[in-house]
Amino acid sequence: MDTKPDHMKALFDPQTVAVIGASDNPHKLGFHVMKSLVNSGYAGTIIPVNPGTHEIMGRRVCAAVSDYDKNIDLAIVVLPAKLVPGVFRECALKGVRGIVLITAGFKEIEDPQGGRLHGELAAIANQADIPVIGPNTFGMINFHARLNASFTPEFSQLRRGGIALISQSGGMSHLLGFLAMRAEVGFSKIVGLGNRLNVDFAHMLHYLADDPETRVIVLYVEGLDHPMALVEAARALRGKKPVIGYKTGSGRVSDQASRSHTGSLAGSHAVYTRAFTQGGILHIDNTETLLDTAKALASAPLPQGTGMAVLSGQAGPSMAACDVCERQGLHIAPFSPPTQHRINDLLPPLALRTNPVDMGPAWYNASAIAGIIQTVMEDPHVDGILLLMMFASANVDALRGIKELLLTWKQQKPLLSCIQSPPGVWDAQIKELEDAGALVNFPTPERAAAAMANVWRVHRLQTVISDQAPSSPSPHKGI
Amino acid sequence: MDTKPDHMKALFDPQTVAVIGASDNPHKLGFHVMKSLVNSGYAGTIIPVNPGTHEIMGRRVCAAVSDYDKNIDLAIVVLPAKLVPGVFRECALKGVRGIVLITAGFKEIEDPQGGRLHGELAAIANQADIPVIGPNTFGMINFHARLNASFTPEFSQLRRGGIALISQSGGMSHLLGFLAMRAEVGFSKIVGLGNRLNVDFAHMLHYLADDPETRVIVLYVEGLDHPMALVEAARALRGKKPVIGYKTGSGRVSDQASRSHTGSLAGSHAVYTRAFTQGGILHIDNTETLLDTAKALASAPLPQGTGMAVLSGQAGPSMAACDVCERQGLHIAPFSPPTQHRINDLLPPLALRTNPVDMGPAWYNASAIAGIIQTVMEDPHVDGILLLMMFASANVDALRGIKELLLTWKQQKPLLSCIQSPPGVWDAQIKELEDAGALVNFPTPERAAAAMANVWRVHRLQTVISDQAPSSPSPHKGI
Repeated sequence: MDTKPDHMKALFDPQTVAVIGASDNPHKLGFHVMKSLVNSGYAGTIIPVNPGTHEIMGRRVCAAVSDYDKNIDLAIVVLPAKLVPGVFRECALKGVRGIVLITAGFKEIEDPQGGRLHGELAAIANQADIPVIGPNTFGMINFHARLNASFTPEFSQLRRGGIALISQSGGMSHLLGFLAMRAEVGFSKIVGLGNRLNVDFAHMLHYLADDPETRVIVLYVEGLDHPMALVEAARALRGKKPVIGYKTGSGRVSDQASRSHTGSLAGSHAVYTRAFTQGGILHIDNTETLLDTAKALASAPLPQGTGMAVLSGQAGPSMAACDVCERQGLHIAPFSPPTQHRINDLLPPLALRTNPVDMGPAWYNASAIAGIIQTVMEDPHVDGILLLMMFASANVDALRGIKELLLTWKQQKPLLSCIQSPPGVWDAQIKELEDAGALVNFPTPERAAAAMANVWRVHRLQTVISDQAPSSPSPHKGI
Repeated sequence: MDTKPDHMKALFDPQTVAVIGASDNPHKLGFHVMKSLVNSGYAGTIIPVNPGTHEIMGRRVCAAVSDYDKNIDLAIVVLPAKLVPGVFRECALKGVRGIVLITAGFKEIEDPQGGRLHGELAAIANQADIPVIGPNTFGMINFHARLNASFTPEFSQLRRGGIALISQSGGMSHLLGFLAMRAEVGFSKIVGLGNRLNVDFAHMLHYLADDPETRVIVLYVEGLDHPMALVEAARALRGKKPVIGYKTGSGRVSDQASRSHTGSLAGSHAVYTRAFTQGGILHIDNTETLLDTAKALASAPLPQGTGMAVLSGQAGPSMAACDVCERQGLHIAPFSPPTQHRINDLLPPLALRTNPVDMGPAWYNASAIAGIIQTVMEDPHVDGILLLMMFASANVDALRGIKELLLTWKQQKPLLSCIQSPPGVWDAQIKELEDAGALVNFPTPERAAAAMANVWRVHRLQTVISDQAPSSPSPHKGI
């Protein structure tokens, strides 16, 4: 469908939400959806719809959407599959502008009746210009509107931030959400596309292009009916918002599983990864790397070259970071002569004064550490900084000593770090620096370095693509 | 040196510990070492040694080791480098049996005086048969003796467990320690070898071979003077205790940095990785994978083949796990006919009933889930199980429903899992299952699968090596 932008807006930022199939029985998904909405701090109107009861979670219940006398922007549907076509017709009559269809049991089941129902729903929704998230989805969350339209109330615990996740798997969305809760990474939207009645990855990219809350778009893909639509939508975002994606199914068995699970047209893994590259979508093959890269893209500028400085409080972690940099196409930049002279003034004659710099011998001298970091920040050979600091009781004040410098500099070049301590020791200080945009922190030097390599790749993908005239290459080639 | 076993025992399990250079000034390392010892719950006697004061942390101070009238097993030395030879002579006279030499400034510094001092100390220690951990180390911790002989009191927060870490980097030891605190992974010993006066990796492997608390040995290596000694010591452990290792310096810059940092004889990265393989040491190139693999080896049996079953509550995570399995030499085993029939009885006719199994449709039926898991456990085609479960509000009881089964089965084959929830929801239940040896849990499906591939590799390394007569191949070839 050609989704109307105002309908997409009403879907994600509704004034009024109806839950069709709302329930106060905790064994029903309609209970969990209600709980999500009611507990997320959503400021709009919530209308439980259920012909069999009068009140759910303190809210008056309507027997049908037609019974509600004002407009309904969004309907969340959690009824058995066979009832859904009737509900869709009622929604179309009522003028509902968007639907989240949580119910499963359509084209993904073996019974051909599922596919027939799917087609019937698509016809109704397309006729009425209603964009539908689902079927077979956990739902979606718009964090900045405090709208949790999913069957998982716990998603509301996530921080608001700049990452939009568009996913074809509920399991992976929950996994990424829980990892992000633990790492305190913030999201703008999480959208479970499910079996994509009429809203697919491409529609979401079009919509998110103008979403002011979204700085980075993360895709989790299992299979696509229209890979070229994704390529074209992603190309339209080039130079505007980074798009990164994870496509599972690289193995024989998982590829097969993916095809049956999503009910998508077949297509080998290689076709998708080529489509990613053509669309300028950075392809990542690991959940944690996906989240790490999204986090870096949401909070750090893109490096303008491959020259890295590795500043470390201890030699070992710096070598681990250098290994990853060199393996992944970055280089450890030789410092310019003024930088090197300044470092030689500040550090005693130990071996590791060239890049990578072992700042350990200066830990007791906060101004020396700050001096080293500052001169490296200003070095024109340096496109990005990896800062690695492991706590020891004797250096407990080291982080405080460089805080002002980091807050003032505010990542004029990307500064990714691995600053690690026992739980609770430095965590609050690191969070403060992250929230102020002064650095982006990772649990290990390798993950910080891999995230740096990925933000560099995003920069390169955007540059390579925007060097071509947008219409010149035939994007259908090779797909 | 040929380290006397009883001296190594006294070093790691001393009755009496002297801290030479003890201090009550928090700006001195001697303060932090005292704090580590005093706060770790160590049951032996602690003797602060310092000629300038009478009491430190409530303990009577001796002016010199000779002033103490009973035996001293372990001396921890935190004095400036130039004073250390005199102290070593006093320790030899006193009959001290082991030394941890924290002081830096010996052969790793540019001044040739450092190398001379290093040689002098080695001569004294070797003459007196005193094994020395260090110099230039944070120290060591023997968790089962509650002995924290390091300058980092926070190491005492780590759980006791079966992993011994022998490391050439203080930074990496602290990093691994902090990661382990956050993941609640337990250690038997953490030993910072530093610049290895006379205790090197090989000596530690000999000693740990008979250490009843150590089930897995983890090495972090930057450079070695005697790679063949490590190969031979590791080969002696084959079939007894798994040894895994991380060698940084794979890149040009980090290799160079590693050579200057450790002051070791040069040797390319390839030489070390070949030495690892010859010794049956599994080579790992990432901090988190190192810890994950150690955790799996400490708590799961080795798989006897490559046939994996992937049981998942959601399809997406199972595909991610299958991808890693297939990429890393495991295979997703087709179930034997009785297993497949049983699963078909228990699950509705959805696509993913063959391996990987999407158990999602049965989440509301604990006995169906348990039935699937149990039949798969018993399948002779299955050598290991990956169990993946993402929390949703509606499946909050799912973990409780399979608990008894997992506790009873107790990993007759390795069962690695990624069971994830918002912080605090399932964490305690997972920990209980882990502590009972019922499973080993990881933050992502990919990490669980990679750990499984690594425990399989350990099994293969041990089998390949033990097929050869121990003395037949010339281990010097290729080194």
